[in-house]
Amino acid sequence: MAFGLWFTLFELLLKLFLILAFVKKGSAGITSTFTRTKWQSFDIPLDHKVLAIPNGYNAPQQVHITQGDYDGKAVMISWVTADKPGSSRVQYGTSENKYDFKADGTVANYTFYNYKSGYIHHCLVDGLEYEIKYYYKIGEGHSSREFWFQTPPKIDPDSPFTFGIIGDLGQTYNSLSTLEHYMQSGGQTVLFLGDLSYADRYQYNDVGIRWDSWGRFIERSAAYQPWIWSAGNHEIEYMPDVGEVLPFKSFLHRFSTPHLASRSKNPLWYAIRRASAHIIVLSSYSPHVKYTPQWLWLRDELKRVDRKKTPWLIIIMHVPIYNSNQAHFMEGESMRAVFERWFVRHRVDFIFAGHVHAYERSLNV
Amino acid sequence: MAFGLWFTLFELLLKLFLILAFVKKGSAGITSTFTRTKWQSFDIPLDHKVLAIPNGYNAPQQVHITQGDYDGKAVMISWVTADKPGSSRVQYGTSENKYDFKADGTVANYTFYNYKSGYIHHCLVDGLEYEIKYYYKIGEGHSSREFWFQTPPKIDPDSPFTFGIIGDLGQTYNSLSTLEHYMQSGGQTVLFLGDLSYADRYQYNDVGIRWDSWGRFIERSAAYQPWIWSAGNHEIEYMPDVGEVLPFKSFLHRFSTPHLASRSKNPLWYAIRRASAHIIVLSSYSPHVKYTPQWLWLRDELKRVDRKKTPWLIIIMHVPIYNSNQAHFMEGESMRAVFERWFVRHRVDFIFAGHVHAYERSLNV
Repeated sequence: MAFGLWFTLFELLLKLFLILAFVKKGSAGITSTFTRTKWQSFDIPLDHKVLAIPNGYNAPQQVHITQGDYDGKAVMISWVTADKPGSSRVQYGTSENKYDFKADGTVANYTFYNYKSGYIHHCLVDGLEYEIKYYYKIGEGHSSREFWFQTPPKIDPDSPFTFGIIGDLGQTYNSLSTLEHYMQSGGQTVLFLGDLSYADRYQYNDVGIRWDSWGRFIERSAAYQPWIWSAGNHEIEYMPDVGEVLPFKSFLHRFSTPHLASRSKNPLWYAIRRASAHIIVLSSYSPHVKYTPQWLWLRDELKRVDRKKTPWLIIIMHVPIYNSNQAHFMEGESMRAVFERWFVRHRVDFIFAGHVHAYERSLNV
Repeated sequence: MAFGLWFTLFELLLKLFLILAFVKKGSAGITSTFTRTKWQSFDIPLDHKVLAIPNGYNAPQQVHITQGDYDGKAVMISWVTADKPGSSRVQYGTSENKYDFKADGTVANYTFYNYKSGYIHHCLVDGLEYEIKYYYKIGEGHSSREFWFQTPPKIDPDSPFTFGIIGDLGQTYNSLSTLEHYMQSGGQTVLFLGDLSYADRYQYNDVGIRWDSWGRFIERSAAYQPWIWSAGNHEIEYMPDVGEVLPFKSFLHRFSTPHLASRSKNPLWYAIRRASAHIIVLSSYSPHVKYTPQWLWLRDELKRVDRKKTPWLIIIMHVPIYNSNQAHFMEGESMRAVFERWFVRHRVDFIFAGHVHAYERSLNV
């Protein structure tokens, strides 16, 4: 893995919007001269071109992919059609404009207050070869659209790979700057630390509308490389005043995770292996105390880590367990009380967390 | 409230199966000479008379009641019919054998592995008067059965009331002894601290069967006075090996709570007021960190406490936040980290918790 990138990335990201606590053997103290601007950042207006709806009747939009299995030989491709369900088929192949294979997915929609979502498609493309560029096509007729992705190298300690880390992205002008910088970085897969769209800052039907715009916003990257999802507080969207009380409703409908492949029964926590890394995704806002499903699952998943195959053990989650900032101070205590000892015992290499919007890294303790 | 009873109760209960951490201004140190027997306690066999199925085709069984509103003027009556749905009607009145009123409820069933539950009825009887003995009748024809309950006094600082505390009950011979002692104590309402039936010690269809037997076991008390429910780890029943992964499935189907009356959207956490007490029920195994529904709800509910009307503020939950025993040591840290400051700030009088099966009480700190 090209860890040099972390620091390039961090330098960029610090100028921007996000970030994250960072557990790594390294020096403590002040690591950057960055000072946050005092000006608030504004959401990109819906008619801005980076949020534009693609041309064509019922054209696929909000296209994004994620790893579809445990070991990186499958991809889940997701998109939305606005006008009618249409086809959930993905055509794909290893040469441009030559789609020798096909896979069929599912389609569903949901409501949020009076908002009715578009038709959300999820299609698993599996049985792929490692280290191949695949081209894929979705949608029908003149409205079809074409993209590509690269599969990772095999699971092996010597497989190089470059992950990017993004969290708390939103859809402001700063978010756009973050995304563009990331896309120039050479990162091959995003580990996303929760707080995706910040659509919950809106009310009523605008919540759903801002999820759609965010899906279009990230497509420029997420249609071409996997984004590995974890959920943050902005995904909870517990809004009893408008009758919406099912936590993570929008997130779970829109974003698929390969949880079953790691024996998790809940899409909010799961694991994948990719190149030389074993990546565990935890859910800060789901039960995690002893006897709960997440606790039981993590206990077993940690036993499945094989450092001979994946020397890097990485955990991503939204809330850091160490945080010296005033913002969100001590909010990670609940999870720290339960999991810190496991993280130490299993010699986790990195925990990446978001939530605080300030850069901080610490020694493991 | 007759706090004298606590100590009578505790003396009894200590000889038995349960209990609980106890936050109270009182002296620390060893408070009892009780020594737990070294013999294991065994579950009562299904053909024992205390688990007997009532006579009559489709006769109501597993009858239990709980408070049905915020202030004690409603009762939720629940029961199971084994053979067919039958009627969900409750007939009731203020004289024996004279049922001037009626209410109609709902019926539903569920599966657990290959077990199919009986038809579970929940019927809300509301608009009751305070301090009245009501008689009620459920079931049809020769299979009908009759019970009674007493409504509490009005919400008032001078309203006396005697609560009993039971947790971790199970269905062993010790459980029976506990229940019989409680019934002799004069307690008017049970605050139940989670871990009801221990049916999850069984496998496959026996899980459901042992929920049914437990429902019959507690009927002798719970049909005649409200049991106020909180859920423990034995209610989670996360059993992926048999395809059961929905936490609290059996519990939520079988036991109703008046959560909507306290503006909670989840039956696992809620509040009631009864006589001179404001009672808050928390869920140890549901999300409780900042931004989660339980956290948001508790923050608001604590603001609704009016000590002029209810001078006693009581919290019940399964896992104690203070525990010096080896068993379950530090398991309450997750919730302590989040809620302890609120409990202190709002001057909670008592926190009753179970889980540890050892008596311990502590000063608030």
